[in-house]
Amino acid sequence: MTLDRARQLDAADPLAFARERFSLPDGVIYLDGNSLGALPRATSAKLADTVENQWGKDLIASWNKHGWIDWPTQIAAKLAPIVGARPDELLIADSTSVCLFKLLAAAVRARPGRGKIVTRTANFPTDLYVAQGLAEMLGLKLDSVPVEELIDAIDEDTAAVTLTHVDYRSGAILDMRAINAAAHEAGALTLWDLSHSAGAIELDLDGSGCDLAVGCGYKYLNGGPGAPAFIYVVERLQDELRSPLQGWMGHANPFAFDDDYRPVEGIGRFLTGTPPIPALAALEAGLDTFSGVPMSGVAAKSRSLSQLFVAEVEARCPNLELASPRDPAQRGSHVVFAHPEGYAIMQALISRRVIGDFRTPDLMRFGFAPLYNSHVEMVRAAEILAEIMASREWDQPRFRERAKVT
Amino acid sequence: MTLDRARQLDAADPLAFARERFSLPDGVIYLDGNSLGALPRATSAKLADTVENQWGKDLIASWNKHGWIDWPTQIAAKLAPIVGARPDELLIADSTSVCLFKLLAAAVRARPGRGKIVTRTANFPTDLYVAQGLAEMLGLKLDSVPVEELIDAIDEDTAAVTLTHVDYRSGAILDMRAINAAAHEAGALTLWDLSHSAGAIELDLDGSGCDLAVGCGYKYLNGGPGAPAFIYVVERLQDELRSPLQGWMGHANPFAFDDDYRPVEGIGRFLTGTPPIPALAALEAGLDTFSGVPMSGVAAKSRSLSQLFVAEVEARCPNLELASPRDPAQRGSHVVFAHPEGYAIMQALISRRVIGDFRTPDLMRFGFAPLYNSHVEMVRAAEILAEIMASREWDQPRFRERAKVT
Repeated sequence: MTLDRARQLDAADPLAFARERFSLPDGVIYLDGNSLGALPRATSAKLADTVENQWGKDLIASWNKHGWIDWPTQIAAKLAPIVGARPDELLIADSTSVCLFKLLAAAVRARPGRGKIVTRTANFPTDLYVAQGLAEMLGLKLDSVPVEELIDAIDEDTAAVTLTHVDYRSGAILDMRAINAAAHEAGALTLWDLSHSAGAIELDLDGSGCDLAVGCGYKYLNGGPGAPAFIYVVERLQDELRSPLQGWMGHANPFAFDDDYRPVEGIGRFLTGTPPIPALAALEAGLDTFSGVPMSGVAAKSRSLSQLFVAEVEARCPNLELASPRDPAQRGSHVVFAHPEGYAIMQALISRRVIGDFRTPDLMRFGFAPLYNSHVEMVRAAEILAEIMASREWDQPRFRERAKVT
Repeated sequence: MTLDRARQLDAADPLAFARERFSLPDGVIYLDGNSLGALPRATSAKLADTVENQWGKDLIASWNKHGWIDWPTQIAAKLAPIVGARPDELLIADSTSVCLFKLLAAAVRARPGRGKIVTRTANFPTDLYVAQGLAEMLGLKLDSVPVEELIDAIDEDTAAVTLTHVDYRSGAILDMRAINAAAHEAGALTLWDLSHSAGAIELDLDGSGCDLAVGCGYKYLNGGPGAPAFIYVVERLQDELRSPLQGWMGHANPFAFDDDYRPVEGIGRFLTGTPPIPALAALEAGLDTFSGVPMSGVAAKSRSLSQLFVAEVEARCPNLELASPRDPAQRGSHVVFAHPEGYAIMQALISRRVIGDFRTPDLMRFGFAPLYNSHVEMVRAAEILAEIMASREWDQPRFRERAKVT
């Protein structure tokens, strides 16, 4: 009966057509697009064209002939409807961690005399590490507080507040608008990590009063493993802020080869080195999987998928505990279930071709990519999980052996 | 007669076989491999395998199954014979500019209390911009002196000396051994930019007393446009130095997701974000073009090519002035000729399918990639340049119009 209902939901799904935009292996239920998005069908041909026809045939002339020099801003502009920003507030560059460093450094330098950066404990680790490295270098205090104390920690000594929008473990969404307002009231700037938000839920960076944001290209945006990241700087701050990672690509006139750095006006000043052209081509193919798909539809399907999955798992697996917000409006596009043997259970599930991942200490994480996951997959995945729980087939040494990457 | 001699040189060239490792367009004489290396024949298949078979079919499991997590160090190890270093002193990461920032910051933090960074005027611009950005952020002085005054400028207040090894304009090589010795005598660390050296000339980083170096993946190393850069940190300094760009990939245990940063031992601590997997695959194909080719042979052929080119141009073009060291042992693998109409002349040359580039104010730059350039090309390129000079065919508005990227 449930499978029939899932088939009906899929038949009525206005986003069902988008699955054809991806190349997914047969028989796999892929619930880890929040960690590494699936391969778009267009990526290979786009990469081959960039490499063979552009680089191979036109060589150095490609920078002009194929407009490579403008790709970091042109491709970023495709993110505008996905994150709710103006095209000229966005840039593709570097990795998420490097972009975090650039923008956090730019933020604290725009608030001289203030002594601290506020963040939360259990923020995404790389966000904490970047903030620790910067704070240590500049002699600032990194005030890392439990999330409930966050608003109270923001004061007149706060230069910047840096937070991950959607918790990588529980999926819980922070209230961007309220935190931006509190930061602004204290005169601080905000920097959001959208790695688990962009392409998964509706965002309105401009309308929510955001200052700065970064996000990951290889999760819901389907840009491929280690894809470049994106940067958002609200228009009103662009000419005030300066990245300390000054590279020639952010110079007002890079081909003048001046000895002195002079940042270009606008978002381009946040570029550093030479843009990674094939990686940009692959990320563009990833962003194009969102073409013609409204984010309201993506978000609605995400809620529909995750609600169905949670209901099916809870109905079938009494020993698994939901460790995500129950209200789908309060979470991103993934959920976690806790179990002391979560690692082994997840490996058993993967051996049955249902791919999620594990996050320490005991969390099985399942991500829902509305462009390619279906309601039938939710029911099938829950059925297989229930079989594994009932049979205890996870209880084998081979499933307990920890891999290097989890 | 000269063309016959060039043919003899090519027939006796022990590196002639390597040209088959590249896909070059017919009829083009490509003398800009110092700016963007040519496409290796193996790149497309390697990229397609990485994208379609690894990412597409094995998805997130590829991090373990295909060992992606180790690629930044494994692929870097192929650089060891190219730059004269131990495999475990090398890492692939980020862009050259970002790597410069990381290592320069690590160096000055390892010399607390010292107030300045020494560099030279007319250093490669992005190297200067990175040093300016860091110095400004940390309240250090950037002492940028004419190259003749360099050794004298290094004193007890110098934390680090940062220099490009081969001048991007003239091709002149700095004396790495002497500068390292002077820096060490003063207690300072050295950071070399090898962008115009690696893959072009013989290097012995370990034997020359180097501390730190970075280099470009997309010039002589043939890694493709915007390829990731490489980092060298001499073994004796690895555990003493810390990059302020602390990211999860440099953590001792990234998948423990600890709140606190603890750098891994060894070169891996200089990683920041998630490695760019397809770009690493392409760079590996580039490094593999050096397989079985001793750098002594590469350097010898570079000298043979550049000497022939200089002799042919000087014999045929009396109005062009060599603006590079005349002794090939004193220069890298490119030369520049100066002419007030250099920009237009270079565009005319490109329209005749001889590809070099132009560097402000008046320099025509010609690079020699020993793996794919031939002696016959040197003579043909000089002949065509001489025809353009004699006919003044460069004297047209279409050749004077400046492109965005030069």
